[in-house]
Amino acid sequence: MALPEKKVSLVVIRRLPRYYRYLGELLAQDIKRISSKELSKKMNVTASQIRQDLNCFGGFGQQGYGYNVEYLYKEISQILGLDVGYSTIIIGCGHLGHALANHGGFERRRFHLVGLFDNNPAKIGQEISGVEITDTNLLEDFIAKTKVDIAILALPKEGILDISNRLVDCGIKGLWNFSAVDLEVQEKGKVAVENVHLSDSLMTLAYKIQEREHHKNLTEE
Amino acid sequence: MALPEKKVSLVVIRRLPRYYRYLGELLAQDIKRISSKELSKKMNVTASQIRQDLNCFGGFGQQGYGYNVEYLYKEISQILGLDVGYSTIIIGCGHLGHALANHGGFERRRFHLVGLFDNNPAKIGQEISGVEITDTNLLEDFIAKTKVDIAILALPKEGILDISNRLVDCGIKGLWNFSAVDLEVQEKGKVAVENVHLSDSLMTLAYKIQEREHHKNLTEE
Repeated sequence: MALPEKKVSLVVIRRLPRYYRYLGELLAQDIKRISSKELSKKMNVTASQIRQDLNCFGGFGQQGYGYNVEYLYKEISQILGLDVGYSTIIIGCGHLGHALANHGGFERRRFHLVGLFDNNPAKIGQEISGVEITDTNLLEDFIAKTKVDIAILALPKEGILDISNRLVDCGIKGLWNFSAVDLEVQEKGKVAVENVHLSDSLMTLAYKIQEREHHKNLTEE
Repeated sequence: MALPEKKVSLVVIRRLPRYYRYLGELLAQDIKRISSKELSKKMNVTASQIRQDLNCFGGFGQQGYGYNVEYLYKEISQILGLDVGYSTIIIGCGHLGHALANHGGFERRRFHLVGLFDNNPAKIGQEISGVEITDTNLLEDFIAKTKVDIAILALPKEGILDISNRLVDCGIKGLWNFSAVDLEVQEKGKVAVENVHLSDSLMTLAYKIQEREHHKNLTEE
């Protein structure tokens, strides 16, 4: 199995981490095999959608036998590059950067934190999760010496364009951007970008509340 | 226009905040009218998808005239309940809770922070963004006196079930859950839940990186 030749829709791609997460839970419960129907119930997606999704990546099931949990987990892990892993740095060590540095779930999925950066002299030299905070001015030197795949941008939006341009020039592969500004550097095709808009998720909750109020008998997840 | 009688797919619902965000940007630029084609380019969704999405909520465009930006913005705002607004509390004032309390984007969308809770005596009585931290033991008393629509759960997963049950008993409308455990209280139909899995977004970035490495000429957003 391999990455598909054709472009896969972002809607499908966004389901892959969820498959990975649920399969990991099944593995932890020592469940060896799951039907697309059972997986469908757990994921809240139709069984035919699951078959279509996985067919984008070559398909992994056998008609009537369901999916081998460990095999599928490993294959998705490989599609996402988690078998090799990624080294990450965080730029901006305010409360958000701090929370992200302490987030145990990233390390477990082989996103290894190798550096922290801030331009506040009071923070430089301090440690979070055993990683020292470096002066943001030294970013280029650091990346020249240390392999860095992903930069996590947890700094105010004012600094975001300058920093992202510097990171692209350093040859970074991915930017995970929390600044609430859509970075469009990916249009230059130089770097992969994932913009996080926390308020989108809060507004989705708002919709669910409105829906519950108006249709008390509906139970959309 | 109104909330639809039929269940709308979560994929469509998750696009509403993005429409809202982009329309807000257009409004700020004093743009009065936009074609579905232009909106499509900005959103990276096909024009026919946009028409389908908005048709779920009654449709707002006139053939050949495009969409009235201000009207559409206000209608979506109403669908999401942002015209009335929501009062929110945050449970857990570690770095994540602190970052969320300081997030200016929520207040701007009429999610008003009215309370902060923690069980650490060293934090109780302190203020973040002008809101005092209250002892989590006093949660029920607080909610009995103050209207609270949404609780933001920024505490470790160990405490999450107990707290969410208490909040549901208090009649809270929505839970925004950052604990990396899927809360399934919504199955009881008692409360709207939005589980945030930050690592899903990081894994989506991982996919984009893999895709770029393998197909340098593709530029999926």
